[in-house]
Amino acid sequence: MTEVDNWRELGQQLRVDSIRAANTAKSGHPTSSMSAADLMAVLMSKYLHYDFDHPENANNDHLIFSKGHASPLLYSMYKAAGAVTEDELLTFRVFGSRLEGHPTPEIPWVDVATGSLGQGLPFSVGVALSGKFLEQLPYRVWCLCGDSEMAEGSMWEAFEHAAFYELENLTAIIDVNRLGQRGETMHGWDLNSYAKRAEAFGWKAIEIDGHDFEEIDRAYQEALHTHSQPTVVVAHTLKGKGVKEVENQLNWHGKALDHPDESIEELGGIRNIVVDVPKPDSNAEPRRFDVPGGELPTYEAGGKDVATRTAYGEALRALGDMRGDVVALDGEVSNSTYAEFFRDAHPGRYFEMYIAEQQMVAAAVGLQVRKWHPFASTFAAFLSRAYDFVRMAAISRANFSLCGSHAGVSIGEDGPSQMALEDLAEFRAIHSSTVLYPSDANQTAKLVAQMADLPGISYMRTTRGATPVIYGADEDFPIGGSRVARSSDEDDVTIVAAGITLHEALTAADSLAEDGINARVVDLYSVKPVDVEGLRAAAEATDGRIVTVEDHWPEGGLGEAVLSAFAEADEKPTVVKLAVEGMPGSGKPAELLAAAGIDAEHIADAAKSLVGARAIA
Amino acid sequence: MTEVDNWRELGQQLRVDSIRAANTAKSGHPTSSMSAADLMAVLMSKYLHYDFDHPENANNDHLIFSKGHASPLLYSMYKAAGAVTEDELLTFRVFGSRLEGHPTPEIPWVDVATGSLGQGLPFSVGVALSGKFLEQLPYRVWCLCGDSEMAEGSMWEAFEHAAFYELENLTAIIDVNRLGQRGETMHGWDLNSYAKRAEAFGWKAIEIDGHDFEEIDRAYQEALHTHSQPTVVVAHTLKGKGVKEVENQLNWHGKALDHPDESIEELGGIRNIVVDVPKPDSNAEPRRFDVPGGELPTYEAGGKDVATRTAYGEALRALGDMRGDVVALDGEVSNSTYAEFFRDAHPGRYFEMYIAEQQMVAAAVGLQVRKWHPFASTFAAFLSRAYDFVRMAAISRANFSLCGSHAGVSIGEDGPSQMALEDLAEFRAIHSSTVLYPSDANQTAKLVAQMADLPGISYMRTTRGATPVIYGADEDFPIGGSRVARSSDEDDVTIVAAGITLHEALTAADSLAEDGINARVVDLYSVKPVDVEGLRAAAEATDGRIVTVEDHWPEGGLGEAVLSAFAEADEKPTVVKLAVEGMPGSGKPAELLAAAGIDAEHIADAAKSLVGARAIA
Repeated sequence: MTEVDNWRELGQQLRVDSIRAANTAKSGHPTSSMSAADLMAVLMSKYLHYDFDHPENANNDHLIFSKGHASPLLYSMYKAAGAVTEDELLTFRVFGSRLEGHPTPEIPWVDVATGSLGQGLPFSVGVALSGKFLEQLPYRVWCLCGDSEMAEGSMWEAFEHAAFYELENLTAIIDVNRLGQRGETMHGWDLNSYAKRAEAFGWKAIEIDGHDFEEIDRAYQEALHTHSQPTVVVAHTLKGKGVKEVENQLNWHGKALDHPDESIEELGGIRNIVVDVPKPDSNAEPRRFDVPGGELPTYEAGGKDVATRTAYGEALRALGDMRGDVVALDGEVSNSTYAEFFRDAHPGRYFEMYIAEQQMVAAAVGLQVRKWHPFASTFAAFLSRAYDFVRMAAISRANFSLCGSHAGVSIGEDGPSQMALEDLAEFRAIHSSTVLYPSDANQTAKLVAQMADLPGISYMRTTRGATPVIYGADEDFPIGGSRVARSSDEDDVTIVAAGITLHEALTAADSLAEDGINARVVDLYSVKPVDVEGLRAAAEATDGRIVTVEDHWPEGGLGEAVLSAFAEADEKPTVVKLAVEGMPGSGKPAELLAAAGIDAEHIADAAKSLVGARAIA
Repeated sequence: MTEVDNWRELGQQLRVDSIRAANTAKSGHPTSSMSAADLMAVLMSKYLHYDFDHPENANNDHLIFSKGHASPLLYSMYKAAGAVTEDELLTFRVFGSRLEGHPTPEIPWVDVATGSLGQGLPFSVGVALSGKFLEQLPYRVWCLCGDSEMAEGSMWEAFEHAAFYELENLTAIIDVNRLGQRGETMHGWDLNSYAKRAEAFGWKAIEIDGHDFEEIDRAYQEALHTHSQPTVVVAHTLKGKGVKEVENQLNWHGKALDHPDESIEELGGIRNIVVDVPKPDSNAEPRRFDVPGGELPTYEAGGKDVATRTAYGEALRALGDMRGDVVALDGEVSNSTYAEFFRDAHPGRYFEMYIAEQQMVAAAVGLQVRKWHPFASTFAAFLSRAYDFVRMAAISRANFSLCGSHAGVSIGEDGPSQMALEDLAEFRAIHSSTVLYPSDANQTAKLVAQMADLPGISYMRTTRGATPVIYGADEDFPIGGSRVARSSDEDDVTIVAAGITLHEALTAADSLAEDGINARVVDLYSVKPVDVEGLRAAAEATDGRIVTVEDHWPEGGLGEAVLSAFAEADEKPTVVKLAVEGMPGSGKPAELLAAAGIDAEHIADAAKSLVGARAIA
């Protein structure tokens, strides 16, 4: 058999196995797999360099299915590579199988979870950035994209950034099978509509027939020899290719075939070809960064006021001195988040992502695939732009850190579009997340250092304005803890606050003291996980009276985290929840805190009412 | 004076007034305003047709500042149009002023809130869709964009959709001043990099010097005469133009000028030109849709199982029969969300948005500017892609509805990427939102009908699988209410559930009854606003024993909504919160509900433990 004959046979096998896999669960996307089978047959036979026995090999290429629903194809490739057995292939979508409906890194050869369209290519950019700029290894990133997902703006963020960073180690393959879930795509088989867009964005674009093996071969060859720019192979394909009943037919998206046996026969029957997937040519060691060592910044308690965003930037810079695995990204606001301190000190480990938050978070996910620990930052409000990416990153079991600055009405004049009054809710509802909201510069530095070792996605909310340094530089702030920032032997009420409101709470406590009321102030810097024991102790010590105060909407934030800590408690406190209820406008920070009812005066009033009400009762 | 002289003078006035406005609050973005002043001077003098005395005039053009931070320029234009006084202009960013840091519809001439970059153009697409396809009015939409925001993928979703829908009534103006917040943009002054991208996406692109009035004039003229495609004017400008100290200088983003008096003098001093902004030529009536009338679908209680997503689609179609103001959009999954029922019945009021959730939500915002009531749908998981747009829509005081289908582990085999286990938290934390989660087809229909009249952003979560019809078609389900789905005279425990878990709760109640435990089941279909009274009554009736159960992460969803209802209550129940804790995989719905610990068996166990524990205590 010729090479092309082998590829053709393998393509048919991948189709047959996709049909078989989907037939087990009577669900899945065989037709979306069949369109790309020939493209993948050539890739895995000749171009993909991957050691399936050693997925940890730093020189392995990366294959990312941006069209994650073509998982039957991906898993059929694993079978053809000898990496999964036929028996396992047939567990597709069965409860307990790692071969889920969409790929996740529960499978050792999968880097990132896909299945939300438009994400695989942005993730690929992150992996390719590491290969080119950090590790300086010759591996390539191959990314299979669907044509439908080209409508996602995030794809064009990836096109823009890949070209800007001249990622010649990245090849995208667009499987233009013309048919989306419910009908034709915007551009049908107009390959040039994709190619000309890609070229305008600075890519090399190659249009081919995705079922012509020689054209596929030539296109990949050309991709290998393209310099200073990424390549996209735009391939005309047929959805359901090879089975008349479904080929190029509407209404066959995401369905097992009706007549699997006949279809398999039409494709020439079951085959058991095992492909000798090329192994990496290189055994180069990834570049690592030597670091001089250093110490976290410290701030004088009671000294000059310092914004927690400043402390974030200074701590991150220091962390870069201490650890070579820490990298940073920012969305064109590094002079606000103070990621610029890291950038200036460690330019080789910093990526400017411009105003493209989806690509920024996706790049962080891609970088952590390669075992870096990324810190990505922008205004907290704008991280909401990347929420779907953060959601998917949790399914990717990704480990990285995010910092959102300028959170809350306390930013002042810029107004509500920049305020992020939903970020705590947003990040609490991410699986295995950590949510931190420091009030003080020393605390910030200690928490930043811990973030670099946290599993999962850790989020820190920082404050724009300078605030008092209230803790000593030698104090510890464990994740999941809280801090009693003020107490006496006989406290009447607990005020739970964090970040900017902690300072308002301390001021409130001063004024309450003048009225003979002792307020305990709890600094809930770790909003998730929350310090259940600490909160329960405070409630007990203050006769079940708690005021919570947060620069955030009432839903899903600090107040509800506190309530959750008492859900099943034997003794339940009365919790007066202060939060931002009305839509804020512009104004001075103090004016806006007052208007929102979360400044010292409102906190003191709420505490007084609570103590009074309960004293009477 | 020649026309050009007038424009030049007006441009200078807009600069001067931008500087003056920013000087009041010592903040804001005068330099980003100055770059676009000449572009706007010509626009408002000759091309923008707008009756400032009658912002409700349906034939008015629309002017949307996608670069919302150039608000000093926008407000200076209002002053030049005689719409705001000099005194009011100088209240810019002052507490209580409607002239906020970024524009919001608190100002009658502002359609949408901007300030999160990359959103104004997608909103503009929505307004233009209405003009061309729904109202069929000759108004134009002018959108001023920044060059930095071209890095946002959402801009390219807008480029794609505007070209696809051949929106010749839309003109984008890119103010290429080269400088972002922290440095140069990716493309600097390479105008062609923008023009060629836009052309590849199907737009007419015109490159000009944005300070050359004749070129500006010609470009707008050409835009007016471009057919079947939108136009983008790509303008080379100078940030801070006209004031040497800041012109084309780094580090002047978002800052008031240091020497306002000297700068104003350099620009020729204060002027008080009042522009006679052209009024609309047309007094055409907007096209409205005649409707035949109709009734909501009804379902037989105890009859065939019906998925709430099916009921959503059928109710939406019926609503379209009953009301001409209802329009629908979907993100290429209308055969899953069942928005296709509306599409097939009312094709003239349906927009296919393909897989571009940001543009879909933005189009909904644009359509509601023109007083339609949009319903936009996709898988609940993928609405997270548009979270920043929903957040900003709340600041726009927008009124529209979203439906997210296929929510929860109960979707089964597709796996976690499609599950939306954070959507309730996500939408609860949106200002003035309504969050609905029906369990039954009749209930769904009643809620869909109410959504069309709700102010703010209403969200409905629907379920993939068919579930029993448990309510009669004549029952009412008010927003903010809850429904006791099962009770007896002496209940031992309350189970609060919604959607899919309501059915599990009812099954659990059956099995508990066999063990002699009476469970009250509360259907919390309105997750926000939540029925505080109903929940408190249930708690009281069941001796303070509540089990909540939700197909959602533990944070920010139904369980925490319940806890919030009791925060300040005199009597507080013990709340056992069942939710999805571990990362799910693929499997059958029943397997996944069981694995997540939220099926009938786990609910019954939790209720039994709670009753037992309290009985002993």
